[in-house]
Amino acid sequence: MMQGEIKTAVLIGAGNVGWHLGHALNEMGIRVLQVISKSPSSCKELAGLLHADYTTSLQQLAPEAGIIVIAVPDSRIEEVILQCDFHQNLVVHTAGSVPMEVFNGRAVNYGVLYPVMTFTRSKPVDLASVPLLIEANTTGNNENLNVLATRLSGVVRTISSEQRKYIHLAAVFACNFTNHMYALAETTLALKEIPFDLMKPLIGETSDKINRLSPRAAQTGPALRNDIPTLEEHLRLLDSHPDIAELYRQISKSIITFARQKNK
Amino acid sequence: MMQGEIKTAVLIGAGNVGWHLGHALNEMGIRVLQVISKSPSSCKELAGLLHADYTTSLQQLAPEAGIIVIAVPDSRIEEVILQCDFHQNLVVHTAGSVPMEVFNGRAVNYGVLYPVMTFTRSKPVDLASVPLLIEANTTGNNENLNVLATRLSGVVRTISSEQRKYIHLAAVFACNFTNHMYALAETTLALKEIPFDLMKPLIGETSDKINRLSPRAAQTGPALRNDIPTLEEHLRLLDSHPDIAELYRQISKSIITFARQKNK
Repeated sequence: MMQGEIKTAVLIGAGNVGWHLGHALNEMGIRVLQVISKSPSSCKELAGLLHADYTTSLQQLAPEAGIIVIAVPDSRIEEVILQCDFHQNLVVHTAGSVPMEVFNGRAVNYGVLYPVMTFTRSKPVDLASVPLLIEANTTGNNENLNVLATRLSGVVRTISSEQRKYIHLAAVFACNFTNHMYALAETTLALKEIPFDLMKPLIGETSDKINRLSPRAAQTGPALRNDIPTLEEHLRLLDSHPDIAELYRQISKSIITFARQKNK
Repeated sequence: MMQGEIKTAVLIGAGNVGWHLGHALNEMGIRVLQVISKSPSSCKELAGLLHADYTTSLQQLAPEAGIIVIAVPDSRIEEVILQCDFHQNLVVHTAGSVPMEVFNGRAVNYGVLYPVMTFTRSKPVDLASVPLLIEANTTGNNENLNVLATRLSGVVRTISSEQRKYIHLAAVFACNFTNHMYALAETTLALKEIPFDLMKPLIGETSDKINRLSPRAAQTGPALRNDIPTLEEHLRLLDSHPDIAELYRQISKSIITFARQKNK
């Protein structure tokens, strides 16, 4: 028997995460009753797509919801929580970097539902393969959250706030910093007015490799080979961008350090 | 009329690039006559797959070949060239970082065929979508090389040695440094014994986004938001790895700098 099975949801936040979670919940038959966002146009638009009510006021939070999902930027979670009355409803946030304890004393039934993914509004993501990391304040809440998450994704795990912090940090390397490497490539090509498109097959293959090889086994390039003439030539090409040259030097050094550890 | 059309090839180097180019040439009906590598086992194995002769001696270079393809590490190209007698045959190297002038006075007909890709022996790559950048010492050689490259790939461009250097540098950012970001994510997760698999959907989506958005438009994360508490927390989590913490600081700083330029 699935006591407390979640059948309805309220969404706080109408950004990228709210947009994707809202659609996924609706598709899985968990009806989104209400969308709350401080942006009137965003919450009206998303509510329209989800056939939900909408408001810009946290004081208008619907009193009955199977689950309240807070999908606002990490730095705004605490301020949102302080303005809400969650009653006995289960409430979760979706942030990697915020501990579950942010709900202490402000909610009775609470937890975290963290999707390890980067979301862009205009680009559909198949949530089925996205890891959903859950945590809850009681075994019962964890069970309910687990049932819900398993309807959305094939990869659900219970993870502590402490572990989730490290996963979020790893995601910064794997996503945000990786994307900045693409931006640095684009900037380098722009020095000679070469279009970035040239990099796209290489970028696709580099990420695809990871499905077969560990990152350490997949490493290639002049730094790994300790190819000093090429490293020096690259720094020379970056003469006009000393900040990028310094970053090139630091990352190359880190690759060499990793290679030495591996060979030990 | 396609005078000088290339019908046969000799491969110098039996590593990842030689392995993939050799197979692609054979499949396109350009017969690989001979494989030369200083590693007897590598050249024997690849020659067997390509139904070609093999030797470990550059002095045994077949005197007649439509094209001689040098696919050895960048740092070994010059030493290989010095040992060969290319006669009138067209010879190319496949390196991003080595100028065409390396052939000056050592060959009559020469050029470069640089695939913008990372190759792993065990993983097939569809060369058809891989940019092949060509350069040659005469218009006629460029034309022959263009005809050959167009049989291998749908993306062929003539690029100068100077431009190629920048493209190679950009590829270091987009591939080698990106892969190191994956390695840093793996190391971060290992601190809490969390498997790297958790990152794979995120890594796939991060690279896929680039097909829709420019890297600058795709940028997300705590550095972009200038979310100081999260940045400080991440540095604290890396206390036991000061080198990685320093890299985290530098890359975050670079992301913030890029965001400011964008907003100007």
